[in-house]
Amino acid sequence: MLHSRLFTTIAAIFLAAPTVLAAQTDPLPSWNDGPTKQAILDLVTAVTAEGGSGYVAPGDRIATFDQDGTTWVEQPLYGQALFALDRLTRMAPQHPEWKSTEPFATVLSGDHAAMGRFSEKDWLEIVAATHAGMSAADFETLVADWLPKSVNPVLKRGPVTSLVYQPMLEAMAYLRDNGFRTYIVTGGGQDFVRTYARDVYGVPPEQVVGSSIATKYEMTDAGPVLMREPKVFFVDDGEGKAKGIELFIGARPQIAFGNSDGDREMLEWTTAGAGRRLGLLVLHDDKAREFAYGPADGLPDSKVGTFSQSLMDEAKARGWAVISMESDWKTIFAVP
Amino acid sequence: MLHSRLFTTIAAIFLAAPTVLAAQTDPLPSWNDGPTKQAILDLVTAVTAEGGSGYVAPGDRIATFDQDGTTWVEQPLYGQALFALDRLTRMAPQHPEWKSTEPFATVLSGDHAAMGRFSEKDWLEIVAATHAGMSAADFETLVADWLPKSVNPVLKRGPVTSLVYQPMLEAMAYLRDNGFRTYIVTGGGQDFVRTYARDVYGVPPEQVVGSSIATKYEMTDAGPVLMREPKVFFVDDGEGKAKGIELFIGARPQIAFGNSDGDREMLEWTTAGAGRRLGLLVLHDDKAREFAYGPADGLPDSKVGTFSQSLMDEAKARGWAVISMESDWKTIFAVP
Repeated sequence: MLHSRLFTTIAAIFLAAPTVLAAQTDPLPSWNDGPTKQAILDLVTAVTAEGGSGYVAPGDRIATFDQDGTTWVEQPLYGQALFALDRLTRMAPQHPEWKSTEPFATVLSGDHAAMGRFSEKDWLEIVAATHAGMSAADFETLVADWLPKSVNPVLKRGPVTSLVYQPMLEAMAYLRDNGFRTYIVTGGGQDFVRTYARDVYGVPPEQVVGSSIATKYEMTDAGPVLMREPKVFFVDDGEGKAKGIELFIGARPQIAFGNSDGDREMLEWTTAGAGRRLGLLVLHDDKAREFAYGPADGLPDSKVGTFSQSLMDEAKARGWAVISMESDWKTIFAVP
Repeated sequence: MLHSRLFTTIAAIFLAAPTVLAAQTDPLPSWNDGPTKQAILDLVTAVTAEGGSGYVAPGDRIATFDQDGTTWVEQPLYGQALFALDRLTRMAPQHPEWKSTEPFATVLSGDHAAMGRFSEKDWLEIVAATHAGMSAADFETLVADWLPKSVNPVLKRGPVTSLVYQPMLEAMAYLRDNGFRTYIVTGGGQDFVRTYARDVYGVPPEQVVGSSIATKYEMTDAGPVLMREPKVFFVDDGEGKAKGIELFIGARPQIAFGNSDGDREMLEWTTAGAGRRLGLLVLHDDKAREFAYGPADGLPDSKVGTFSQSLMDEAKARGWAVISMESDWKTIFAVP
C-alpha cells in the first residue's frame, strides 16, 4: 500500500513536470507581447482553470485552425492550386484541346495573376481534371511526390510546407500542451492536407476537416479501392466550416483561428458558445516579410483569401482578435 | 542525472502497471474461451508487439464497431426507428392526413411486423418528418428526453441503452486499454448515436461515424444555429462504411465488428489492409436470451439486420470470425 502510494506520488510529480516547466518559459516565443498574445494566454488560462467559469474538461478542449493564409502562405495562389496547376501542366500533352479551352488555356499560359481571378467554377473544373479518376491511395502518392519539389512562385522558396508560420505552430503546440485537440478546418482538400498535416502541424488525419470529392467503392483483383470521382461531396468553407465542425467534431471549439471571409461562420459558431471563447483573424499586413492585403490603410483587396471590410467590422463588433503579422509576430516562417 | 533516471524508471514501471495487471486477469470475462475470443486476443497481441510484423503505433490503432445488432439489440426494429415511431405518434394529432397516407398509417397502426418490412424510401419519409425542421441542439434535447423512457417492445425492457451487449463493452474497453481508438461506424444517425455514445460506450462524439442529414446555417437573434433539413447528406451503410471510415478517420482499422450485409464493405476494407487485421460478425443465434435470425440451420432471415448466406460465404472465404451469441457469449446484456 505504502509502496503503491509512493509510486503514485512520484509518478504524479513526474507527469506534472512538463506543465511546471511550461509555466516558467514563454510558450509563444515568436509572438510579441501585447493584447493579441495575451488574449490567447488568457483563453487557455480560463479553459484550464479547474473550478473557474470557463473551465472545460481536457477531452472537450478544441481548437480549430483554418489553413490557407492562417497557418501557411496563400499567395499568389493556394498551395493546393499550385499542385493542381503543376499536375495540369504535366497532363497537358495528353489533352491538346486544353490549349483552346478555359480555364485550362490560362493555366497553361502560366499567368498567375489571371489564375488568381478564377471563379469557383473554374477551380472545380481544374479539380475534376487533376484530383479525380484515381484511387485515394494513388492520390496520396501523387501529393507526396509533388510536395518536396513544390515552390512558391513569388517568394521563390520551397517546398511550400516550409512556408508555415512559426507563431501558429507555437500556438498549436501550446494548445495541445494544455489538453486541446487541434484541428485544421480548411476550405482546401481534406485528403490533400492529410498527406502532410501530421509531419508539418502535428495534426493526425482524423483532425483534418476539409473539402472533399465523392468516392466510389470498387472491388478489384487487388482488393477494394476508393476511386475519386469528379464530383464535389462537401465544401468546407463559409457556412461549411460550421457544418464541418459539427459533422466531424460534434462539439464547439473554444478557440478558432482564421484569416478570411471563408472563416466568418467558423468564428461566429465558435464564439457564440457558452463559457469563454476566442476568435482570431490573421491580417496580412507585412509586405516586407510576407504579403500585404486586406482591410487596413493602403492595403489592396485580394480575391485569394479575401478579408473584407465587413469581416473586419464584424470582428470589432464581436470582440475577435485581429493578428497583425507585422506587429504581433517576431518571426514569420517556421523554416528561416 | 541519476535522479531523473530514477524518476523515469519508476514512472515507466508505474505507467506499465495497468498492462501487467491486465495480462494477469481476463480482459474479456463475458466471452467463453475458444477460437473467437482467441482471435481478438491474438490480434491485440500482434498489433501491440513492438518489433513484430503486425505492430502498429498506438496513435494509429483503430477499431470500428457497427452499432445495431453488433453492440446492441436491433430487433424488432432499430433503436432509432423506435424513436422515430414514438415521435411520429406524438406528432400525429397535428397531422390528420397521416391516417390515410403511407408509411405513416402503418406506423400509427402500431404493427411492428409491417414496419420491419418498410423500404428505405419509407424510412426516409419517416426521418424527414421526425428528424428535420429543428436545430441540431433541439434534436439532441429530443433524443435525450426520449431515451430514459424508451422500451424494447418485444423484450419489454428499457431504456433501450440497457440492451447493449456486455461482451462488446468488454471488447471496446480491452482495445482502448491497448491503445486503440474505438469508433462506432453505424448506418444509424450520427447525431442520434452521439447523444449517448460517451455514456453508454465510452465513445466521444468525434468517434461516432454515422448517417447524416443536411443542415443549414442560420444566424438568429440568439446567435447562429444549424437547422436540420429533410434531406439525406450521407448514408453510412454498405459502401458508405468504407467511405465513412476514410472520410472521418482517414486510416484503416485493424479490427472491425459487424453483424449484417451493411457491414460487408467495412470488413472487406479493414481486412484488405497490410499487416495483421481481423473482421468479426455477430450471429444472432440465441433465441433463449435475445433473438435468432440469419444464415444458420433453422434460423429465419430478417429484413432488419439482414445477415445473408452470401455474407456468411464471404466470411468463410476471407477468414472473418463469426461470433455465436449462444456459444461465444457467457452474458448478453450489460444490464442484467
